[in-house]
Amino acid sequence: MTFEERKKRALKRLAERGADADIVEILERINRLENFFTTSSCSGRIVLLKIPHAGSKREAEFIAKWHRPVSAAEVLLALKSMQGRNAGCSAASGEREEIWLIEQPPIIHVACRDLRSAEEMLKVAYASGFKYSNLKSLKHFVVEILSTERMDVPLCECGRMLCTAEYIEFVVSRANFLLNRAKRKLKRLLENLSYIE
Amino acid sequence: MTFEERKKRALKRLAERGADADIVEILERINRLENFFTTSSCSGRIVLLKIPHAGSKREAEFIAKWHRPVSAAEVLLALKSMQGRNAGCSAASGEREEIWLIEQPPIIHVACRDLRSAEEMLKVAYASGFKYSNLKSLKHFVVEILSTERMDVPLCECGRMLCTAEYIEFVVSRANFLLNRAKRKLKRLLENLSYIE
Repeated sequence: MTFEERKKRALKRLAERGADADIVEILERINRLENFFTTSSCSGRIVLLKIPHAGSKREAEFIAKWHRPVSAAEVLLALKSMQGRNAGCSAASGEREEIWLIEQPPIIHVACRDLRSAEEMLKVAYASGFKYSNLKSLKHFVVEILSTERMDVPLCECGRMLCTAEYIEFVVSRANFLLNRAKRKLKRLLENLSYIE
Repeated sequence: MTFEERKKRALKRLAERGADADIVEILERINRLENFFTTSSCSGRIVLLKIPHAGSKREAEFIAKWHRPVSAAEVLLALKSMQGRNAGCSAASGEREEIWLIEQPPIIHVACRDLRSAEEMLKVAYASGFKYSNLKSLKHFVVEILSTERMDVPLCECGRMLCTAEYIEFVVSRANFLLNRAKRKLKRLLENLSYIE
């Protein structure tokens, strides 16, 4: 498939599925550029993830997703709705199940026409504060635009809260702080994209 | 500078500074290959980091670093040694200071002769379980070998413990689990590197 064919297909998929409100303007700007198109994205989020065993994210299940800052009350409510469901789970049986609060910065995958255009996109991403940006795939020159704000905090094990409500309040305030900082970089990215023709 | 000149300089620096025991054999294997050399590395670690304000890692200060699994007692001892030093710090004054426990997987930066050799190194990295591997720099074709095991957990604010000793015990056990899993991938990487000539 040519670059143009892949771009057409990606734009059709984007039109069908839509994108997060915080990021849609950036995707449109990138997709208007001749040498680029977006293949996937997330505007940054805070999630509660149920993980069978620490790190086995393949089998993980979302309990809640927020593409915005949250309150500790919202998080506690979502956790509460899970209680009781883990009655059969026992740490001793080896059937460990945990709930983690994870904050993820915005991420955008951009397919670039060639290495030169990938370099150009990477330059703009770095200049906008996305310090973990990189070339993800050499096959199709896919640039991953990514910043550093990330938190991975375990909260519950086997339906049992591991920490106090006060600690959750603190963790949520930090997650909100990081999410807001990361989302501000999206504005800088939008401005800096105007330097690409 | 040519690739050979840069390699010579990097090997000299490596000989001077040395590398973590867990990773030294891998670095030697890579550096014996004609089209590659390592520029920096870490074998994976658990650290306690003092951060002025969540995420401002530029001004962060290491309290402790372990390139191996740790015990909760070691972590608590390191935290205790910090107490009292933050007497003047007040959350209300805006002068927030936090201590985070961070687990980081192994990371190796490999300079490659050209795009084709970068592709080859990336393939070996993915096949060995390093799913976050990527091409970091297009200028010198630097591949970053990186896996996904990471934890970032705040523990203290302004000298005040945010969580219980029991929670720290749980966090440490998870950090150890992730660190061990990541370090096992180093063995696979060492084996798979033999496929590169």
